[in-house]
Amino acid sequence: MTTVTATSSEFDQAIALDPGPDGRHRGELGAGWQIGGGINGGLLLAVAANALSRELPGHPDPVSISGYYLSASRPGPAEVRTELVRRGGSLSTGTASLYQDDEDGTPVERLSVLATYGDLAAQAGEVHTSATPPALPPRESCVGMEHAPPALIEQAALLERFDLRLDPATVGWAVGQPSRQGRIQGWFRLADGREPDPLALLLVADALPPVTFDLGLPGWAPTIELTVHLRAKPAPGWLRVSHATRNLAGGYFEEDAEIWDETGRLVAQSRQLARAPRPR
Amino acid sequence: MTTVTATSSEFDQAIALDPGPDGRHRGELGAGWQIGGGINGGLLLAVAANALSRELPGHPDPVSISGYYLSASRPGPAEVRTELVRRGGSLSTGTASLYQDDEDGTPVERLSVLATYGDLAAQAGEVHTSATPPALPPRESCVGMEHAPPALIEQAALLERFDLRLDPATVGWAVGQPSRQGRIQGWFRLADGREPDPLALLLVADALPPVTFDLGLPGWAPTIELTVHLRAKPAPGWLRVSHATRNLAGGYFEEDAEIWDETGRLVAQSRQLARAPRPR
Repeated sequence: MTTVTATSSEFDQAIALDPGPDGRHRGELGAGWQIGGGINGGLLLAVAANALSRELPGHPDPVSISGYYLSASRPGPAEVRTELVRRGGSLSTGTASLYQDDEDGTPVERLSVLATYGDLAAQAGEVHTSATPPALPPRESCVGMEHAPPALIEQAALLERFDLRLDPATVGWAVGQPSRQGRIQGWFRLADGREPDPLALLLVADALPPVTFDLGLPGWAPTIELTVHLRAKPAPGWLRVSHATRNLAGGYFEEDAEIWDETGRLVAQSRQLARAPRPR
Repeated sequence: MTTVTATSSEFDQAIALDPGPDGRHRGELGAGWQIGGGINGGLLLAVAANALSRELPGHPDPVSISGYYLSASRPGPAEVRTELVRRGGSLSTGTASLYQDDEDGTPVERLSVLATYGDLAAQAGEVHTSATPPALPPRESCVGMEHAPPALIEQAALLERFDLRLDPATVGWAVGQPSRQGRIQGWFRLADGREPDPLALLLVADALPPVTFDLGLPGWAPTIELTVHLRAKPAPGWLRVSHATRNLAGGYFEEDAEIWDETGRLVAQSRQLARAPRPR
């Protein structure tokens, strides 16, 4: 695996924006980040977050970011409009809205974001944690996407952007034997070797297949809301990621993600509320 | 305990608003809802959510609501400005901003909210859950607020609004013996017998003492962000509530709350990011 520089990486190209006037930023949602007919929600959040980081100078990193998904996005041009809500000493808050034009050229909002930014590098160092990283087999014993069912890859082009090695214990759904524990976990790295940073963690928080696959519910699960808390800057290297759900009810389920870096530090926690796939 | 009607209850009075022009709603933050020098964050979220429910007719209930806390609020007049983001078939999204005037009469934003509303009563009935309610001793074996240290009550007038019965296993901090497990749990009901509903659950999600008390960190923990997912309409009666944290790092911690109704259904899940109290 070669390590690429930030600017040449697929991810950095995907979140790149041309700054326009009045807090408007123009980007292009690439077809390579599609999943189930739309653009991956984590990638969209990273695009919006990238725009917002320019609105909040001195506070480069999202500390807490909430995205509300309004309509399905598609490959093509997008515009992000940002607005400062409050500028503070150690934290600042702002909004971002991601739009795409419909057939008539009318802007339609895809994603509405509210977030507080700070400087993760400036945070105090002490860690008091009872959380433990997911117990994963070594990467060579995990299941790479080269073993994914072709029907899955067809619907999820973004999986080709990832070097994802799933824990075999949580991947039975791929062969019709879901564990029904509501958990999918594995090792993650961007396929082109681009190292993780806070914006990339937003992508990773929504990168694994929907955890409902493991409940025996194939089909895509549209995100209603996704909040990510960035808890530390990630070290270079592999990430350990777990997605879990405990409560599917009334047609919705929560998906909790944890992301751990190579030093064993919990670098992000996220929760999303998503619509459950309909049972077949 | 007498049961009061919605309109005569302390909580309904606290969240009451006079509708004004242009999506502006005027309310009064009562001194009885103070904690640690400010107004309780869950109560503020309920006030903003009450305003937003008028902006989104047909979709009365918050399904997912995210509040970003910008500055400390105080007893007195407040104004909530709401805005529709997107109106959909089963869900609608909007924003709410809660302001108070500073000494010069300049409006200062206290709380910025982004939320998606729907109709919880219209949701499908199926429940598939692996979550279990917190194991609590019977209420008569739990610790009521009449046993709380006077110093705590002085700083937390809102505790008088609650009939809160904490699990003795998670209340050792009150006598200088925190369990250090990062968990506080107990039975909850509004003191005047007002039955729970989705807006009241927003209050309950932030009603217990900061879970950092149980880590041996007294002192208040200002909320940065609080997202609540409403998973079902609560049945009348007592609620079981747990607050837990697993990761205190870099000066911040997450607090996860679960709220279960008297029928044993998980009715709300929430997570907040808060600033850790400084060790003494």
